Amino acid sequence: MKIDFEKSGGLVPAIVQDATTGRVLMLAMMNQLAWEMTVETKKATFFSRSRNKLWVKGEQSGHTLEVVGLQTDCDQDAILVQVNPTVKGVCHEGYESCFFRTLEDGEWQVTEEKVYDEQATYEVKP
Amino acid sequence: MKIDFEKSGGLVPAIVQDATTGRVLMLAMMNQLAWEMTVETKKATFFSRSRNKLWVKGEQSGHTLEVVGLQTDCDQDAILVQVNPTVKGVCHEGYESCFFRTLEDGEWQVTEEKVYDEQATYEVKP
Repeated sequence: MKIDFEKSGGLVPAIVQDATTGRVLMLAMMNQLAWEMTVETKKATFFSRSRNKLWVKGEQSGHTLEVVGLQTDCDQDAILVQVNPTVKGVCHEGYESCFFRTLEDGEWQVTEEKVYDEQATYEVKP
Repeated sequence: MKIDFEKSGGLVPAIVQDATTGRVLMLAMMNQLAWEMTVETKKATFFSRSRNKLWVKGEQSGHTLEVVGLQTDCDQDAILVQVNPTVKGVCHEGYESCFFRTLEDGEWQVTEEKVYDEQATYEVKP
């Protein structure tokens, strides 16, 4: 039984969840190699569509994600990655989670504070 | 500020999370109309790629998902849907979550029990 990478043209969505708090931190895509590297290295690794290359999360920021659990769904076309962040703050915009905007009365509102200084962390925006 | 449905050809991945337990229950795709219906009706609604049509989760099984929160990520190309399931068991295979397989020693293992009788619930497999 394998992940179905072909269904969506070689990329499968991977949900990243904080293993301790349960918070959903981000969603990114994995190709076969990113998946194998994630399993092998226990560092969450993705395929960046915008940069068209493999992307070890934290390679630039130092905010790597230690993988402590991997699950797949009924159709084997999505992955759930349980992680322990080595540094708080997964989002390149400075927030703990990329999901920092909440729909309130029909408008997106930023509903939390930043947890690190993203401008000091990223010399070049990812 | 709007969801970026164009980036991936009109469909955006939506992560469904139990608002009470934090468990990730499923991942499905939304198009613009599924998104608008989800916001409007507060029932999680998706676009089924296999059936090529709008899909109100639970329309067949009765296991609808009451939406209590909606978040989007930094790139506005993913949605996090916080729900209260009206009936326990989101997966059409009988499990609480579609993510019922865990990677253990390099093999996918079913790591939990079914929570409802899916054969009695679905006359025709979805």
